[in-house]
Amino acid sequence: MSEKPRVAVLSRAGMPDQIAHLDDRVDLAVCTEESLADELTRCDVLLLWDFFSRAVRPSWSDRATVRWIHVPAAGVDKMLFDELIDSDVVVTNARGTFDRPIAEYVLGLVLRHYKQFGLTQRLQETRDWRHREPRTIAGSTALVIGTGPIGRATAALLRAAGMRVTASGRTRREDPELGTVLATEELPEQIGDFDVIVLLAPLTDQTRGLMSADLLARMRRGSYLINVGRGELLDQDALEAMLRSGSGPLAGAALDAFDDEPLAPDSSLWTVPGLFVSPHMSGDDVGWRDRLAVQFIDNLDRWLAGEPLVNVVDKHLGYIPGAT
Amino acid sequence: MSEKPRVAVLSRAGMPDQIAHLDDRVDLAVCTEESLADELTRCDVLLLWDFFSRAVRPSWSDRATVRWIHVPAAGVDKMLFDELIDSDVVVTNARGTFDRPIAEYVLGLVLRHYKQFGLTQRLQETRDWRHREPRTIAGSTALVIGTGPIGRATAALLRAAGMRVTASGRTRREDPELGTVLATEELPEQIGDFDVIVLLAPLTDQTRGLMSADLLARMRRGSYLINVGRGELLDQDALEAMLRSGSGPLAGAALDAFDDEPLAPDSSLWTVPGLFVSPHMSGDDVGWRDRLAVQFIDNLDRWLAGEPLVNVVDKHLGYIPGAT
Repeated sequence: MSEKPRVAVLSRAGMPDQIAHLDDRVDLAVCTEESLADELTRCDVLLLWDFFSRAVRPSWSDRATVRWIHVPAAGVDKMLFDELIDSDVVVTNARGTFDRPIAEYVLGLVLRHYKQFGLTQRLQETRDWRHREPRTIAGSTALVIGTGPIGRATAALLRAAGMRVTASGRTRREDPELGTVLATEELPEQIGDFDVIVLLAPLTDQTRGLMSADLLARMRRGSYLINVGRGELLDQDALEAMLRSGSGPLAGAALDAFDDEPLAPDSSLWTVPGLFVSPHMSGDDVGWRDRLAVQFIDNLDRWLAGEPLVNVVDKHLGYIPGAT
Repeated sequence: MSEKPRVAVLSRAGMPDQIAHLDDRVDLAVCTEESLADELTRCDVLLLWDFFSRAVRPSWSDRATVRWIHVPAAGVDKMLFDELIDSDVVVTNARGTFDRPIAEYVLGLVLRHYKQFGLTQRLQETRDWRHREPRTIAGSTALVIGTGPIGRATAALLRAAGMRVTASGRTRREDPELGTVLATEELPEQIGDFDVIVLLAPLTDQTRGLMSADLLARMRRGSYLINVGRGELLDQDALEAMLRSGSGPLAGAALDAFDDEPLAPDSSLWTVPGLFVSPHMSGDDVGWRDRLAVQFIDNLDRWLAGEPLVNVVDKHLGYIPGAT
């Protein structure tokens, strides 16, 4: 038996190039969802390269040897389950990697809406020169739901671009960076104050369905909704019904995350008026896979040296608490 | 004969509501391009509400009584001509009104390109979930050509959003706000250093055709060109040929200004690959007409009080010098 720790990599596409060179320090093994159950009883570390996989749960057994699972994503909602939560297995995530790309993507979506680039593109296709008056984002109000690093980076960038930004989280508090943070239970009263709502909360039992039909109905007339978190944060059906009816307060919405991904070709969401659909790409800037590998390897170096890991998820909360 | 000064308003659509209430202080007269020649021999002040009109020149005569012409636009290139330049007639413009809207529009265009929103919109139309890796603008380089108030506002906003921004103007200098300003004659050497080029110079004899076929060819591979100034700053034909050939360095371009506006339905520019066409709307945010009226009325108050006008154009230069 090898004396090197065994690091399993869940990857449909074989061993990632960015990881392969670790084989001088660890026993590297690539596995698929089919071989994961067996691998979990042999490995010390699992790198969930296919980070949206839900296969850990059905592959789990009390013979599992794995001690650390790294999820190279911001959200770990798809892989957590009770036995894992109650176990001693450490779960880490890719905190920090997605902050800047997602913040930029959100600002881009806001400007795309305010400057009417979508309509302009359609008018170009029909050679229609139709002058309109876009709005300025300066002085408009945005509510960022989620106070983790991505929410913070997004709030900071929207502010830098001239918007007045408020954040909301589990509890009302004064945050040195964000200012007054609204509590979730204040949203029904407060949500009508904002021109743009950005969903960036981690998906937990508390946040599932947070953006309900009721909250959607309470949004400001002409406001815009952006979901770059998780599809399940939002009542997608209610949003679709509202936009199709043309009678709700929203001027439109942009979704980069969905209940089921990839969105099926026959999904009705593709054709909702005023809805911009993008394929969960907001955080995945050029080179992101390389950065995710580097982040894992840095943590692996700590683990091999017996040092504490960074970016350890509170499995009961479903995210890393105390973000700044 | 009235003792009140006569203010003529060139406006195809009749007297603007925002101006009409001035009739207690001045003799207000609306005119069209057809009646402008007559009006110029009667009025004291001309408000060129149709600010793209070129009718002043053919309507001019040495019997002109007008002493002040206000152009509610940033560029006065379309209305200046030698007799007017050599006369004592004061020309003022709408300096300041367009700074923020245009800065936002440019940032929006940059993000639209970097985040591939145009392609995403087309893929949505065909229900195609195609994940790609967008680029981050953080650390990318932008060159803003033009150091007037709009150029300054644009440079500041792109910087606030994380880009590294350089400006260029007529002469090389150190500017307290912009840093090192490159001279136009340095552009052939320097233009290859930038990921985004923004054209925002006033249109003058010196800047006409500034973005030549040669400069376009020297741009960085994969770079992006944005023209929110005047169509004539750019060799449109060279840009079109380059983008159609697919062999030049540019990844694409966005034009909000054209040689001839509105762009004719049969213009070939509508269908150039990688070219985003918008109908000269970058500066015209909601309420812009009201703000333009207020700005004129403020200056009219000065004029009526015998005080110096603000935003006086140097007619020989074609813009207001010494911007900050």
